Amino acid sequence: MWPASVDVRSTCHQGPRPRERTIWRSPIPVTPETRWYTGGVSLFIDRLDAIAQKNKSLVCVGLDPWRPSMPIADIAAFNKAIIEATHDLVCAYKPNSGFYEAEGFDGLRALEATIAAVPDGIPVILDAKRGDIGSTAEAYAKAAFEVWGADAVTVNPYMGGDTLEPFLAYEDRGVFVLTRTSNPGARDFEELVLDGQPLYERVTERVREMNTHRNAGLVVGATAPEELARVRAIAPEMPILIPGIGTQGGALESSIRNGADARGLRAIVNASRSVIYASKGADYAEAARTAATKLRDDINVVRSEMGFAWS
Amino acid sequence: MWPASVDVRSTCHQGPRPRERTIWRSPIPVTPETRWYTGGVSLFIDRLDAIAQKNKSLVCVGLDPWRPSMPIADIAAFNKAIIEATHDLVCAYKPNSGFYEAEGFDGLRALEATIAAVPDGIPVILDAKRGDIGSTAEAYAKAAFEVWGADAVTVNPYMGGDTLEPFLAYEDRGVFVLTRTSNPGARDFEELVLDGQPLYERVTERVREMNTHRNAGLVVGATAPEELARVRAIAPEMPILIPGIGTQGGALESSIRNGADARGLRAIVNASRSVIYASKGADYAEAARTAATKLRDDINVVRSEMGFAWS
Repeated sequence: MWPASVDVRSTCHQGPRPRERTIWRSPIPVTPETRWYTGGVSLFIDRLDAIAQKNKSLVCVGLDPWRPSMPIADIAAFNKAIIEATHDLVCAYKPNSGFYEAEGFDGLRALEATIAAVPDGIPVILDAKRGDIGSTAEAYAKAAFEVWGADAVTVNPYMGGDTLEPFLAYEDRGVFVLTRTSNPGARDFEELVLDGQPLYERVTERVREMNTHRNAGLVVGATAPEELARVRAIAPEMPILIPGIGTQGGALESSIRNGADARGLRAIVNASRSVIYASKGADYAEAARTAATKLRDDINVVRSEMGFAWS
Repeated sequence: MWPASVDVRSTCHQGPRPRERTIWRSPIPVTPETRWYTGGVSLFIDRLDAIAQKNKSLVCVGLDPWRPSMPIADIAAFNKAIIEATHDLVCAYKPNSGFYEAEGFDGLRALEATIAAVPDGIPVILDAKRGDIGSTAEAYAKAAFEVWGADAVTVNPYMGGDTLEPFLAYEDRGVFVLTRTSNPGARDFEELVLDGQPLYERVTERVREMNTHRNAGLVVGATAPEELARVRAIAPEMPILIPGIGTQGGALESSIRNGADARGLRAIVNASRSVIYASKGADYAEAARTAATKLRDDINVVRSEMGFAWS
């Protein structure tokens, strides 16, 4: 399966500088061409499980700098304060690329600083919802994993399976595929019944077929508890990123009951505004810690009722 | 319909600096909140029609810097040479954001320089395939139209109509929605059938319903000529961006015959590699001009056969 000869130098030294966080991660990206060189590197799913166990948490905090809600103007400083206040309470951070891109180069520098501020061992899920074909999809995967150094990225499946492959080729990174999202518009196309099956179920099946490296995940909104249960039934082992609790009105209990796997894991509950904007005052970091603690504990109550304890 | 009071200063001076090209464009973005201030600004579709008439061309050149094919290393210099050699032969340029993002900050500076190098009057379609909800979709629209100053952007409809609205709210900009793409994976989801109707047709209908500002377009691959005809039948007036001729094997004649509107316009044929990498030697710009000229003329032969002449 491995190529007989690979020019490692071109893989190591070309292109933009890789992200500096390296713990639990190969120093070079694990692609089909380089995996012979990086044997033994951990998978995203293993890193995710490990930090969830360590922090006893299924909470992902969304780092979404939206100016009208921000208590201070400096995005990087704001995010760093949030990360510092919550890093022992989460299993992942999820910056949404759109908010940073909207600020131009300054915003992208803040994204870089934000990712660098996440402690080693906590995965960064870059919420970018990319989707393109062939060499362009390779370019987006390179941007997410090599330029920004994300541990995982969200992608859009509309254009088909071949648009997901270049992302999944990075075996040590995670790829969360939009499945049944939390917005009202999810009913427009995702829920259409096509050839007897809702589109989001078809997407789930296709992603599961493609998950040969154990690095695929799914995105299902907390606002769709029944659909979440169906997705979990189709994909028993895959991590599911669950946005939409709190501000968007999704229910926490059903998110865990319907989204967790057989060990009570891999339902990653994302909260953005309800945590990072818990206070608009000078106590915003402290308030974020309080909100994240409550969310973690509320989740763990549900897990306990389901019979799951942290080891 | 207009708000009684709008703080124009906050619209003009906040956020990243707008693009410097201003001809045929309002000095501030035309949104529902600001259009009272920018009365008489031209629509994207009018700018597109005008340059097509002026250059007698339905050719869009894709500015996709892919390192293995580039004859010189400097992306911005390469693109500027291509633009200089072809600007009187095209109706649009389409940089694909992925290739620039993959190069990090240097790549994004090259994107900025590339867009700045496009002469006034020629629309820039930023091929970004974005799609997100609520405030994040607003952020992506702001990035495309205000940070990069694109005239139009490509977007992904998977998550539903509410993900398109923030883009369509910029009335003077164009929004091309992925419909039936040119890649093999288009069969995975886009062609799934609901009540006798494929998903891409449902997308077309939904976009047409939402096109109240006359600024929506569609993306249909040249590799799917029958689907292109069906999309054109559903959306008689909307511009259709048609990638996939040349390297991807799509047929030129059917793209025009099936994609053009009743006046023989608004089928925008994109060519990237077949034009910009027509030669890998020092004569690359000249070769690009030759290839773009041939493509323009081949299209115009088909138009003539259909009975359309440029005025």
